[in-house]
Amino acid sequence: MNTNFSYQQLYQFSKNIFLKIGCSVKDAETATQSLLSADLRGVDSHGVARLSGYIRLWEAERVNASPQIKIVHETPSTSVIDADKALGLVAAPFAMQVAIDKAKHVGTGWVSVKNSNHFGIAGHHAMMALEHDMIGIAMTNASALVAPTFGKERMLGTNPIAVAIPAGIEPAFVADFATTTAANGKLEILERKNLDAPAGWIQNEAGEPTTDAGGIKKGGMLLPLGGDREHGSHKGYALGAIVDIFSAILSGASYGPWVPPFPAYIPMPENMPGEGIGHFFGVMRIDAFRTAAEFKEHMDKWIFRFRNTKTVAGQEKVLIPGDPEREIEKERMQNGIPLLPAVVADLKGLSIKFNVPF
Amino acid sequence: MNTNFSYQQLYQFSKNIFLKIGCSVKDAETATQSLLSADLRGVDSHGVARLSGYIRLWEAERVNASPQIKIVHETPSTSVIDADKALGLVAAPFAMQVAIDKAKHVGTGWVSVKNSNHFGIAGHHAMMALEHDMIGIAMTNASALVAPTFGKERMLGTNPIAVAIPAGIEPAFVADFATTTAANGKLEILERKNLDAPAGWIQNEAGEPTTDAGGIKKGGMLLPLGGDREHGSHKGYALGAIVDIFSAILSGASYGPWVPPFPAYIPMPENMPGEGIGHFFGVMRIDAFRTAAEFKEHMDKWIFRFRNTKTVAGQEKVLIPGDPEREIEKERMQNGIPLLPAVVADLKGLSIKFNVPF
Repeated sequence: MNTNFSYQQLYQFSKNIFLKIGCSVKDAETATQSLLSADLRGVDSHGVARLSGYIRLWEAERVNASPQIKIVHETPSTSVIDADKALGLVAAPFAMQVAIDKAKHVGTGWVSVKNSNHFGIAGHHAMMALEHDMIGIAMTNASALVAPTFGKERMLGTNPIAVAIPAGIEPAFVADFATTTAANGKLEILERKNLDAPAGWIQNEAGEPTTDAGGIKKGGMLLPLGGDREHGSHKGYALGAIVDIFSAILSGASYGPWVPPFPAYIPMPENMPGEGIGHFFGVMRIDAFRTAAEFKEHMDKWIFRFRNTKTVAGQEKVLIPGDPEREIEKERMQNGIPLLPAVVADLKGLSIKFNVPF
Repeated sequence: MNTNFSYQQLYQFSKNIFLKIGCSVKDAETATQSLLSADLRGVDSHGVARLSGYIRLWEAERVNASPQIKIVHETPSTSVIDADKALGLVAAPFAMQVAIDKAKHVGTGWVSVKNSNHFGIAGHHAMMALEHDMIGIAMTNASALVAPTFGKERMLGTNPIAVAIPAGIEPAFVADFATTTAANGKLEILERKNLDAPAGWIQNEAGEPTTDAGGIKKGGMLLPLGGDREHGSHKGYALGAIVDIFSAILSGASYGPWVPPFPAYIPMPENMPGEGIGHFFGVMRIDAFRTAAEFKEHMDKWIFRFRNTKTVAGQEKVLIPGDPEREIEKERMQNGIPLLPAVVADLKGLSIKFNVPF
């Protein structure tokens, strides 16, 4: 049985844990907001369930709790940031703020980050742009779990892309998706229920299609969006590759099969070609193109028309990217965030270890 | 039987046709280069096979052969261009040049274009950035043929995205793909051969999955990359939507179900919310992030490692985006461009009509 916790409870607890490992108050708050945005938006795999994972990375000295995040190169519209092994949860908002500031001055800002760690959910960072009447873009590479089309090695991470676009009366358009057919978290849920995975999600270690939901743990690989060549997996592979290149080769982070793993017990890859995990952020000021009022009026029209698309049998409505997450957030802010017993046990462990009330 | 024509033959012919409708020499050459890049790269549906279609748009006064393409709004890193009903084949290179010039000054350039027409293949335009040691991005909306996830109306075009990234010793990385599972051209080939379409490519007018390769002509719809919800079609839908919004809502072009059709005999949509077709271009100067030499060294390493991924049974190698097109281009520059009898007949018709030797 799941137990519900209020956002405030989890916020206070996570913040206290981040303070205990040596984060500044500001960083602890930023990290907590990044982390819990996943729980609020229903991406349970990326929220407090990962808090102990981040702490283990700190214990393994792969995360620096008091980093000196620095701009190491810039032009009026670009910047490369060395995150100094910061929590990605902290480095990403820092980088987005740099992009927003550049957009204020020259219309857009584009920031590539090296030497970082996992940053939580991409959508949270992209959405920072919305209140400034700007479009926000966030992406990151991640440790390799995905085979390129025709390949049978883990070469790319799930490399998500998020794009947040302001609207007027309508809520913002917020797309946030891994460049694979399905996320690893969905496989774990199926496995727990002893269900098969749909065809096109994964292949086994030998590179053969499989529906074994536990296939990844046996050396298998996720497949790029599209699933197989006939269904366009070369497009998902290209998208994942673009995320990898923008995040890591522009910045000097590690890439491809050499991206550092999230679990601290997995050794770091040998001969890494760059430093840490890489992210890429983009911000475009709406009125660098046309007035925000005009733009929003047309976004509202776009959203209204798409929401009212005639539907196929059995479906009530066509969704706008961001709709499901926004509804979950509203519900969870009211009724609390449900946590699995294993996650609760994990947090209790942290509570005892760091002497922080839970 | 196909007949082979040399690039030079088709170049001279297309250029002469564009001159006859009133294009300047420079525009006729630019349009021809854009158009034929599709034939060279093996995207036969977008090359000279469409020349008569462009001419019919001019005859219908939907294309302006002597446009005043203008920047109507700009900041140091952005620009909105009114293409004045130009051929997209001409407007797109104009816009890319503006983006390149901005990137020279402030690191990146981002250009949204309204009041344009079909621009040929996205990859050709994105690749303009390569010789400047810049990354090029090109996308466009197109008339509606695609149903959003859960929908049964044509709401989006095939809305392609191209990203061209320079490398060093290795050839450039050039991804260029429609945001649908499969392109309409592939369906036409299957239909001609009386073959079924794979599941996940299209649905019929009632919104039911179908494998009828002629289904589009009967009122059916293409499906977003992913095919169905279980395989991530909401991601393909989001990508197509982002292309639509960046191309048209940032610029003031028409969007969604209101994008003007390519065939001149189809009436223009009623109550269009913007002007013509929209495109979006981005250019990032490599050394706005790190030195081009460092970047290229790592791109080479990335490409080499991915090309040498272990392969699944029956596949010789993992491809890098752009590999297949580059090989076709090399072959066709040597041996000529094969045209279907129907295309040859079409060009002969133009030859007679405009008194241009073929």
